[in-house]
Amino acid sequence: MNLCTSPLLTDLYQLTMLRAYQVHGMHETAVFELFVRRLPAVRNFLVAAGLEQALSYLERLRFSDEELSWVRADKRFGPEFADYLGQLRFTGDVYAMPEGRVFFADEPVLRVVAPLPEAQLVETRLINLIQFESMVASKAARSVLVAPDKLLVDFGLRRAHGAEAGLLAARAAYVAGFAGTATVLAGPAFGIPLYGTMAHSFVQAHADEIDAFAHFTDVYPDGATLLIDTYDTERAARRIVDLARSLASRKIEIGSVRLDSGDLGALAKSVRSIFDAAGLSAIRIFASGNLDEYRIAELLRAGAPIDGFGVGTSLVTSADAPTLDAVYKLQEYAGRPRRKRSAGKATWPGRKQVFRRYGRDGRMLNDVIALEADAQGGEPLLVPVMEQGRRSAPAESLGVIRKRTAGELERLPEALRALDPATVPYGVHVADSLRKLADEVDAKVASVPALCR
Amino acid sequence: MNLCTSPLLTDLYQLTMLRAYQVHGMHETAVFELFVRRLPAVRNFLVAAGLEQALSYLERLRFSDEELSWVRADKRFGPEFADYLGQLRFTGDVYAMPEGRVFFADEPVLRVVAPLPEAQLVETRLINLIQFESMVASKAARSVLVAPDKLLVDFGLRRAHGAEAGLLAARAAYVAGFAGTATVLAGPAFGIPLYGTMAHSFVQAHADEIDAFAHFTDVYPDGATLLIDTYDTERAARRIVDLARSLASRKIEIGSVRLDSGDLGALAKSVRSIFDAAGLSAIRIFASGNLDEYRIAELLRAGAPIDGFGVGTSLVTSADAPTLDAVYKLQEYAGRPRRKRSAGKATWPGRKQVFRRYGRDGRMLNDVIALEADAQGGEPLLVPVMEQGRRSAPAESLGVIRKRTAGELERLPEALRALDPATVPYGVHVADSLRKLADEVDAKVASVPALCR
Repeated sequence: MNLCTSPLLTDLYQLTMLRAYQVHGMHETAVFELFVRRLPAVRNFLVAAGLEQALSYLERLRFSDEELSWVRADKRFGPEFADYLGQLRFTGDVYAMPEGRVFFADEPVLRVVAPLPEAQLVETRLINLIQFESMVASKAARSVLVAPDKLLVDFGLRRAHGAEAGLLAARAAYVAGFAGTATVLAGPAFGIPLYGTMAHSFVQAHADEIDAFAHFTDVYPDGATLLIDTYDTERAARRIVDLARSLASRKIEIGSVRLDSGDLGALAKSVRSIFDAAGLSAIRIFASGNLDEYRIAELLRAGAPIDGFGVGTSLVTSADAPTLDAVYKLQEYAGRPRRKRSAGKATWPGRKQVFRRYGRDGRMLNDVIALEADAQGGEPLLVPVMEQGRRSAPAESLGVIRKRTAGELERLPEALRALDPATVPYGVHVADSLRKLADEVDAKVASVPALCR
Repeated sequence: MNLCTSPLLTDLYQLTMLRAYQVHGMHETAVFELFVRRLPAVRNFLVAAGLEQALSYLERLRFSDEELSWVRADKRFGPEFADYLGQLRFTGDVYAMPEGRVFFADEPVLRVVAPLPEAQLVETRLINLIQFESMVASKAARSVLVAPDKLLVDFGLRRAHGAEAGLLAARAAYVAGFAGTATVLAGPAFGIPLYGTMAHSFVQAHADEIDAFAHFTDVYPDGATLLIDTYDTERAARRIVDLARSLASRKIEIGSVRLDSGDLGALAKSVRSIFDAAGLSAIRIFASGNLDEYRIAELLRAGAPIDGFGVGTSLVTSADAPTLDAVYKLQEYAGRPRRKRSAGKATWPGRKQVFRRYGRDGRMLNDVIALEADAQGGEPLLVPVMEQGRRSAPAESLGVIRKRTAGELERLPEALRALDPATVPYGVHVADSLRKLADEVDAKVASVPALCR
C-alpha cells in the first residue's frame, strides 16, 4: 500500500458511510466545498496551496488488490463491498482557487461535484493535503513580506511532522516565495532549488575547525558556506580571513558563512566588519537557529547585515498556528441545497463562488461570497480544474504559481501585509442570494415532521 | 522514489558533508546521540516513540537506481560520489530507550555508533521520525492520564501534517494508551483498532435525519454510533428513543451517539437523561469537536456523562507544543570525545547512559546522565537495539509497548501526572564523570593554535 495515494488513508466513517450509500443506492450528485472556518488570530490572510497534490490524488484514486483484500476480510465490510470499491474511480468535477491565491475565512477554495460516495470518500485526504500546504504557504508568505530581498531557505525537514510534511512544506514555502529548501528530495520531486551548508558535526569531526573549513572548500571550491559558530564565532571569522587569502591563490572562493547561535544581530555586525576590513565584502552572511518572521523582522529592523535566513521548525510546523480550521461540507445533494446548523458550526448552502473587488490602486478591496449563479461584480476566484475525473489543464509549473503568489502579495491591502493582526480585518461579504437560500433551507428542515417508526 | 524510505529525504548538507568525508577518507567510527534539549513549558515528561520506524529506516537504507541517477547528474556530486552512495548501507550499532519509556530533557533516547558518513546521513530522518512520534505520544499520554477509564480515539488525520503524520500519529496515540484511531490505514499497517461513526454529510444527504439513522443501523445492526448534532441535539435524542424501540423488535441495537458541537457537558447530561428515562441506559455517549486534554478534564470535572472522546487536531499536531527541540549530536569521533560549545546550545561529550532511580513507593525518583562506562546506581534506560546494521531482537509488538507506557505512567511522580506544569521539575542530574570529561574536551579545543594557512 502506498502511504500517500492509498484510499485507505481516510477516516473509517468514510467507508462505513460509503457502504450505507451503496446498500441504499444513494449515488446522486453531491456538492462539497472545502473552506477554512476562521483565520488563526495570527494570520491576516491565507495562501492557497496543495491543489496539485489534491488533483493528483483524485486522478489516481483506486483500491489496490492488497487494499481490497483488507476490506474483504474486515467484518464491517465483506466481499460485496470490496467488489464495489474495486470499481470505484473519481469521476467528478472540481473547481478551485489556483495555488498562490490569497483567501480568507468561509471562502470555498475547492468544490467537488461528484456522485455522493466518490465525493465523500476523498474528504479526509483533500483536507489533509490542502490544509497543510496552505498553512505552510501562509506562514512562509509572512517571512517573504518581511524580507523580500533576502535569500530565504526552508531548513525544516527534521522537525516536520513526518516525511510528507517535510517534502510538502518545502513545496509550500517555495510557492510562497522562498528561494529553496535544504530537503534534497524536493529537488528531484519538484525541481525546487536546493541549498545546504555544513553541520556542527562536520566541524567537530575535525581536530581543528580550520581543517574542516579547508577540507570543505577543497571539495566545493565555488562558493561554499562555512558554519562558524561551533566554538567561537568571531575567532572563526578571523581565521577565515587568513584561510580566504591562502585559498584565493588557488582560485578557491568562500561563498558565505552561517551563524546558528548566540546574538545573531551583534555577531553578524562584527563578522561583517572583520570580513570588510579584510577586503572580503563578497562573503555573505547567512543566519539560522530558531528563526521565524518575527525574529527576522527584528534583526532587519536592528540593521543586522544578514543576507539570508534558514527558517526551519517554525515554518514547517507553522508553530504559532499549527492548524487551519479547514472543513469540507456537503452543500447540495441530488439538486437540493444542504446546510449544517450545528451550534457554532453552521455552513452556507449551495454552489458558491468568491468574487473579488480591487481598488483604483490595484489592491484588493473586498470579497463577496455568492451563489455561483448569482454573478457579482469582481473577479471570480474559483475556476474549473477537473472535469469528469480528468484535469481541465496540465499541472501548473511552480514558476507560474510563484509568480501568482508574488502578484497576490503585492495586491494585499497594506494593513494585511504587517505581521501584527490587522485592526480591521479584510471585508468578506455574504451575498443576499445566499442568505435567502440559507433561510429557505432552514425553513424546510424545521418543517420536517418527527416521524415515529 | 519512496517518500518514506528514500535516503534523499535528508538535508542537502548531509550529502555535501558525505562527499567531503569521502574525498578526505573520513570514515572512522562516530558516536551521535539524539536527545531533546528542553521540554516544552506545557509538558512535564515525554514518552519515547518512533524507534520501530527509525530502525526500519536504518535497515533498509540504500539508494535506488533512480536516486543514484539524480545524484550522478547533479553538478554538486557527480558519478564517483553516486557510485560510492550506491554501496552505502547502514552497518552501525544503535542503542535506544525502548518505545513507551518516559524521558526528560538532555537524556539521550537513541545513540548511533557507526562509520561517520553512515551516522551522519541518517540524522535528518531519525530526528524527523522520533521527534514526531514522541511528541504525539507525549501529548496523548496527557489525555490518558486525565481520562484513564474512557474510550479515547484519535480523530486527527484530516488536520495532521500530511499522510505520514496522520498514520504515525495514530500509532503514537495508541502507544500512549489511546484505544484506537479513525485512520483506516492504521488498521492494515499496524493492527490498531479502528473506530468510526458517521459524518454530518451522511445526515444531510438524507431528507430527514431519522432516515439517515435508520439507513445506518440497517447496515450496521450491532451497535452503530449515530451523530445527533446536525440540527438539534436534544430533538434528535428524543427521536432516537422512538427509533430504538422500533429497532429493538428487529434485534437492531444502537451502540452510541456522538455529540460534536454546542455545550458538550450540558448536552451530554440532557441526552443521558432522555435515554435513561426511556430505559436506554446501554446507549453510550461519545463526544468530539475541538477536544484536548484540558477540555476533557474540564468536562469530567463537571460530571459530564461522556463515555468516550474523539481527539483530533490538538492531538496529531500537538497543538500547544507542535515541536520538540530534538537534536542529534556528534559526541565522539575516532575515539575522541567531541563537544559543541555554541552559545546556549552546548552538549555533553562521550557515550552516555541514563540511570533511573525509584523510590520505595515504586515511583520514579530521579535520573542521572553519566558516561556509559561510569555505571551509576539505578536502571539503565538505553539498551542495544541494533548491531552492525541488524536488529538485536525482533520488532516489539504494539501490545508490549502499550503495556510499557502504562507502567511508566503509573510510576510517574504525582506532580508530573498533572496537566499543569510541575512546580518542581523532575530531577535529572549530570554525573561528575561527565562534567570532568566536558572540561577536558574544552581544554583541548582551547589549546588548539590558530593556524595560518
